[in-house]
Amino acid sequence: MKVLVLGGDGFCGWPTSLHLSDAGHDVIVVDNLSRREIDLELEVDSLTPIRPMGERIRVWKALTGKEIGFVHLDLAEEYDRFEALLRDLRPDAIVHFGEQRAAPYSMRSSIAKRYTVDNNVRGTHNVLTAIVSSGLDIALVHLGTMGVYGYGWSGSAPIPEGYLTVNVPTPDGEIEREILHPANPGSVYHLTKTLDQLLFAFYAANDQLRITDLHQGIVWGTQTPQTALDERLINRFDYDGDYGTVLNRFLMQAAIGHPLTVHGTGGQTRAFIHIRDTVRCVEIALDNPPQSGEKVKVFNQVTETYRVRDLAELISKMTGATIANLPNPRREAVENDLIVSRDKFLALGLDPVYLSEGLLEEARDIALKYADRADVTKIIARSVWRKGMETSPDLMEG
Amino acid sequence: MKVLVLGGDGFCGWPTSLHLSDAGHDVIVVDNLSRREIDLELEVDSLTPIRPMGERIRVWKALTGKEIGFVHLDLAEEYDRFEALLRDLRPDAIVHFGEQRAAPYSMRSSIAKRYTVDNNVRGTHNVLTAIVSSGLDIALVHLGTMGVYGYGWSGSAPIPEGYLTVNVPTPDGEIEREILHPANPGSVYHLTKTLDQLLFAFYAANDQLRITDLHQGIVWGTQTPQTALDERLINRFDYDGDYGTVLNRFLMQAAIGHPLTVHGTGGQTRAFIHIRDTVRCVEIALDNPPQSGEKVKVFNQVTETYRVRDLAELISKMTGATIANLPNPRREAVENDLIVSRDKFLALGLDPVYLSEGLLEEARDIALKYADRADVTKIIARSVWRKGMETSPDLMEG
Repeated sequence: MKVLVLGGDGFCGWPTSLHLSDAGHDVIVVDNLSRREIDLELEVDSLTPIRPMGERIRVWKALTGKEIGFVHLDLAEEYDRFEALLRDLRPDAIVHFGEQRAAPYSMRSSIAKRYTVDNNVRGTHNVLTAIVSSGLDIALVHLGTMGVYGYGWSGSAPIPEGYLTVNVPTPDGEIEREILHPANPGSVYHLTKTLDQLLFAFYAANDQLRITDLHQGIVWGTQTPQTALDERLINRFDYDGDYGTVLNRFLMQAAIGHPLTVHGTGGQTRAFIHIRDTVRCVEIALDNPPQSGEKVKVFNQVTETYRVRDLAELISKMTGATIANLPNPRREAVENDLIVSRDKFLALGLDPVYLSEGLLEEARDIALKYADRADVTKIIARSVWRKGMETSPDLMEG
Repeated sequence: MKVLVLGGDGFCGWPTSLHLSDAGHDVIVVDNLSRREIDLELEVDSLTPIRPMGERIRVWKALTGKEIGFVHLDLAEEYDRFEALLRDLRPDAIVHFGEQRAAPYSMRSSIAKRYTVDNNVRGTHNVLTAIVSSGLDIALVHLGTMGVYGYGWSGSAPIPEGYLTVNVPTPDGEIEREILHPANPGSVYHLTKTLDQLLFAFYAANDQLRITDLHQGIVWGTQTPQTALDERLINRFDYDGDYGTVLNRFLMQAAIGHPLTVHGTGGQTRAFIHIRDTVRCVEIALDNPPQSGEKVKVFNQVTETYRVRDLAELISKMTGATIANLPNPRREAVENDLIVSRDKFLALGLDPVYLSEGLLEEARDIALKYADRADVTKIIARSVWRKGMETSPDLMEG
C-alpha cells in the first residue's frame, strides 16, 4: 500500500519508514525536520551520527533498490500544501508520528509548552480535516502514549486498551457504559495526546474516519534490521535530559562512567517496548484498520513493564555503574504498580523482543561505540515543571 | 476586584462587562473584535444596531461615571502582549469568553474547523500559560457549554455538574472513581470546549491554578438592565443560520413573517438560560472561586429545559408564525430527554428568569423593532456538517 509517514525522520518514524519500505510498501516521508532543529536549540545531538534525509534515502535505494519519497513540510503551518499532497499522492494510509514527543521538553518554558500544544493539536487536527476534505478513504495510524492513562488510577484492574467499561448509578439502577479511559496526563506533552484522543473520537463519529491510536510505552534500543544495514542508515539515540528515554539514558550513562540518574525513589513502574517491536506493531496496525463508522481502534503498544529502580540495578550489575537519586519533577505517586492489557497485538501475531534477550547488549555496544560524542552537560534534566521545583546540578564535569 | 473580560465585546461578554462594572468591579475588556469580523465575512449583522467599543465605553462612562478599559488584542496570536498585560494590570480574575462560539460556523468548511480549533485551544492555553508565567494568583472563570456532555448519555440520571461518580470493575471488586463526565461533542466548536476541559484539569493539578468552568445552556434574550439603559449600549442579537440561537431565531423569524425553522423533528431537548442570568452566574462564579490546589470547579449554567418543538409551538401560539421542519445536520438522537443538575448556582443565590415570566415579550419587541434590519437570505443554516448532508433552500425571498 501507499503510506505517508508523518514525522518519518524521527526516532520511531525513520525505522518505521525503512521497515514498511522493506516490506514492500510505497513509503513517502513527510517531515519538517523539527527534531533536528530542536537539537540545534538544545545544543545537543543524537549520540549516533545520523545522516541527512537525502543521504539516508539514497543509501537505502543503493542497498535495496527501494525508493522512499521525502516531502519537507510542516503539518501545523502548511495545511494547504498538505491537503494538496493528499489529493496528489492519494495514499491508502497515513502513519502519524509528527508531534513534539518529549515530556521534559514540553515543560521547559512557557514557549515550549505553547509550542507543544500548538504544534501537536494543530498538526493532528490538520491531518484529520485534510483527510475529510480530500474525500479519500485514508486509514490513519497515530502514535499515542501510555501516559494518557496515568498510573495507579484503576487500582488492581489492568489498564485496558483505550476503553473502560464502567457502571453509572442512575435512579433506576446502574447502567453500563463504555468510556474512553479517563485522561491523567503528567506533562503538557502527554496532555496533547489526550487532546488528540478527543479529536479522533469526534472525526471517527462525525466523518467516519478510520483511525487507530497506538498507546506506546517507553521505547528502548536503537537499531532495527534495516537501520543496521549500513552506518549511514543508523537511527537516533537520544541521551539528553529532555529527549533521552530512561533505558537508553542508563546505557549511555554507564558507557561514559556517569551515575545512572533515577528521579525520585525509582519506584515508578513503566511500560517498555523495543524499537524493533514498534515498527512491527505499526505494520500490524496498518494491516488491521477499523472499518468506516467504527470507533477509534486503540492498542497498547507495550511488551513488558519494569520498575525504574530495578532497571537501574540491572544496568548497574551489567556495567558496574553507580546509581544517583535525583529530585522527581513529576507530580506522581512515589511508587506505583502497573498492569497493562496488551492482548491485541499478541493476538495479531506480535512476537515481542524482551529485555532479557540480549538486545540490551546491542544497545550498550552502540552507547559505548559513540560515547565520545556525548556532551555530559546535557545529561541532567533542567525543566522546572512547576513553581519551586528542585533540579539537580551536573554530576560529571564537562 | 480587577477583572479582565476576554471576549468582552461579544453577546455574553458585553453585558457581563457592564454588569460587573455596575457592581463596582474594575473591568478591562480584552477582545480582538473577531465576532464583528466574522459578521463581515458572513455578510450579516446583529439585528440590533451595536456600536463600536469606543462609543459603548464612552456612553457607559457618561451615564454611570464608571470606567471600562479596552485592549484590542488577539489571545491566540499575541501571547507576549497578553502576558505583559497580566504583569502590568495584575488582575484578580479573568473571565474568558474569548472563543469562536457557533457550532454551525465551526462546521462550515475545513477553514472554519481549523480556525475554531486553532483559535480556541491556542487562546485558552495561552491564558493558562500566561497566568503561570506571571506568577500571579489570578482566578479564571471560563465559559464552557452543556454540549460537552452530549444528550442521552447517562440514561435517567441527571447530567451532573462536571464530574460523575462511576464504579470501575477490578479483580478485587468494584472501585468508585470520580471522573470528568465523558465528552460527547456534536460539533467542532463543542469539541474545543471538551479540549479546554482537559487543559484546565492539567493546569489545576500541575500548577494549582484556580479555575471555574461554566457549562452554559442556550442563551436567550438580548438585554440586561445595563444594556437597556441607552440604545447605544444595546447587546447583539444574532438571527443568522450560524450564530443565531434557537429561541432568538424563532422570535426574529416570527417578527418578519418567516416560518420557524426546526431542524429534524424538534424532539431535541435543550437547556436554556436568559442573558440576565448569564451575567449573574458569572458574578457568582467570580465570588466563589476554588482554592489553589482544588480541582476545577464546574457549574451547569442553565435554568430550564425545553423540547425545541415545544418552543416552536409556544412562539407560534404567541405570534401566529408557521413552523417548517428542515433536515437535521447533526448526528444525534431524534428525540432526547434532558435532566440537568443545576443546584450549585441556586444554592449560591441565583433567582432565575424563566421563559414564562414576560421577558419573551421583551425579546419579541426587540425583534419587531429591528425587523427591517434582517437579511432573510441569512436565516437558513448552510453548513455541510458531513458528506452527503442535505441542506434547505431559502424559505422566503430576499
